[in-house]
Amino acid sequence: MTSPEKYTGIAVIKGQDWTHPKKIQFEPKHFDDNDLELKVICCACCGSDVHTASGNWGELSDSQVVGHEIVATVTKIGPKCTKGFKIGDRVGVGAQVWACLKCDRCKADNEAYCPHWVSTYARKYADGYTSQGGYANYVRVHEHFVVSIPENIPSELAAPLMCGGLTVYSPLVRNGCGPGKKVGILGIGGIGHMGLLLANAMGADVYAISRSSAKKEDATKLGAHHFIATKEEPDWFEKYYDTFDLIVICAGSLTDIDFSTLPNVMKVGGRIVSIAIPDQSQMLTMKPFGLAGVSIANSHLGSMKELDQLVKLVSEKNVKVWVETVPIGEQGVHEVFTRMVKGDVRYRFTFTDFDKEFD
Amino acid sequence: MTSPEKYTGIAVIKGQDWTHPKKIQFEPKHFDDNDLELKVICCACCGSDVHTASGNWGELSDSQVVGHEIVATVTKIGPKCTKGFKIGDRVGVGAQVWACLKCDRCKADNEAYCPHWVSTYARKYADGYTSQGGYANYVRVHEHFVVSIPENIPSELAAPLMCGGLTVYSPLVRNGCGPGKKVGILGIGGIGHMGLLLANAMGADVYAISRSSAKKEDATKLGAHHFIATKEEPDWFEKYYDTFDLIVICAGSLTDIDFSTLPNVMKVGGRIVSIAIPDQSQMLTMKPFGLAGVSIANSHLGSMKELDQLVKLVSEKNVKVWVETVPIGEQGVHEVFTRMVKGDVRYRFTFTDFDKEFD
Repeated sequence: MTSPEKYTGIAVIKGQDWTHPKKIQFEPKHFDDNDLELKVICCACCGSDVHTASGNWGELSDSQVVGHEIVATVTKIGPKCTKGFKIGDRVGVGAQVWACLKCDRCKADNEAYCPHWVSTYARKYADGYTSQGGYANYVRVHEHFVVSIPENIPSELAAPLMCGGLTVYSPLVRNGCGPGKKVGILGIGGIGHMGLLLANAMGADVYAISRSSAKKEDATKLGAHHFIATKEEPDWFEKYYDTFDLIVICAGSLTDIDFSTLPNVMKVGGRIVSIAIPDQSQMLTMKPFGLAGVSIANSHLGSMKELDQLVKLVSEKNVKVWVETVPIGEQGVHEVFTRMVKGDVRYRFTFTDFDKEFD
Repeated sequence: MTSPEKYTGIAVIKGQDWTHPKKIQFEPKHFDDNDLELKVICCACCGSDVHTASGNWGELSDSQVVGHEIVATVTKIGPKCTKGFKIGDRVGVGAQVWACLKCDRCKADNEAYCPHWVSTYARKYADGYTSQGGYANYVRVHEHFVVSIPENIPSELAAPLMCGGLTVYSPLVRNGCGPGKKVGILGIGGIGHMGLLLANAMGADVYAISRSSAKKEDATKLGAHHFIATKEEPDWFEKYYDTFDLIVICAGSLTDIDFSTLPNVMKVGGRIVSIAIPDQSQMLTMKPFGLAGVSIANSHLGSMKELDQLVKLVSEKNVKVWVETVPIGEQGVHEVFTRMVKGDVRYRFTFTDFDKEFD
């Protein structure tokens, strides 16, 4: 298999309507000695793709390919790679493609918190190259950020695990989710639905926490043992007093969450962890004494060690993410972006048919 | 020893200048079957005494005796007591005198977080009696909230451990303070100075964090291995990037702390725990994403199990709290209250000579 000199992808073009991305050719990053080249099989659409493409998170470069829930085949292996990948292996890449791997954080399996980290798209490498994502035929990635996909996970269901799945798995596993623990997933969207599946697979007593009961049936099928509709049970803060060991906030915005009363439903020592990346203008405001005995934290992606554990858990427990597939292409990305903005997704889109579009 | 029908104490009188408390006689609480009656030897002055006496924390009853860092002698034992205290034992009482001891929180050694808890003063028991504190000749307390004082701790040094010491010990011990951990004590006042002593005794690498370097010499003597003067090192947030496993905030107010930059000095998984009880009007405001990988919590007193561990640690490691003794009485309490308001205390006052004042 010969790798092309230029890659092809579906990109948002600066100054043009972001919901109508264009098919472009672009320079790949320099192929470094620790890199793998990967031919993309499929790529799911994360909320971050929409935030980035729409300019919510800052100005874009002239043309930006997004996508960081990638399943792909190894096509080229850098001479200093040591992880044992072989040509033809089916692998995954998430939201991170580089870190220094030398600092204390990297050495402690916290490479996602490395101050020098590079995200899969829209971030500059040290050489000035802006990373380009997985809505493309190929990607080049440092092998550290590549994970093997177990055989029994279909590619389109594996893709959403790479960012969204890991982002909710990391706070679950770091905060003791498991048998005997009462765990709440607040916000049942793309990431929240994976939170329910994974918390259930980890053996916890799982509560889905949503504004209305519209998603109650889905939540039950996804593994929730209990359902709380906060707008329909205004006294839920009292009814569930002292209940939770852990709540993971998977909502996209924090403005609708009352952090002065939420601690009430937590056990002493209970932990509230938010994985939301709200608008920079949103501030977290609470009565400090309301947190008595309870902690609140924000969590950012997860480690590659955790991603490896995650795909093994999904494989062993036969967890099935809920995915709607859409063929990649200008039309497909347009459709998915516009439906994502409307919230018309249950619960993840995965772009497929990359070979038809790009070969 | 016959217990008096009425107790005598130094009380703040409603409607009168709180800094000029008066000696009064008052009805003791009903002597319950699980109660001990204790003759006070000495009582330290906690910041809470000043907040309560001055009305900062709400309206007072007609006459209120404060004081909840009490060392005393057992003089009477309720018929259903089972903890093995004997007449004449030297014991301590902290900020809590009652909890249901039946709920999940009580059973999990979180009686300080029992929704039915009664504080040592200014709180109503179920029968309507308002609890009265230790600036008095006697107190009556449920035996669960009484701890034995090891012989080698002088009474005036044991007293401040009962509330202030426990309040800083609990978050230290619950959040892994010990060898190999970098622990910051932010705010070097009455509680903060005990934080330094205790974190050092627990084997941590201890950082004193203060606004100026005025207390540097004291902090070093108290066991700090490092000192940070935040107003004199404006780049301290960068200099100490990724340093701390734990910071316990012992400052009286949170308004001076920048919670959007403080997480920067924490390791991933690091914990910020505040033990401040600020004015109810103060809100905690931060950029939510600034907490990436870091948690913030508030902690409230500690358990009796922890108080027992604490006095054993202080006894074994021969920890010496820094105390200035003042004879109890109208004049003594007046002097201490006014000096506390001015911050003229290094680092704890203990009222002594109770026998001279009250016998």
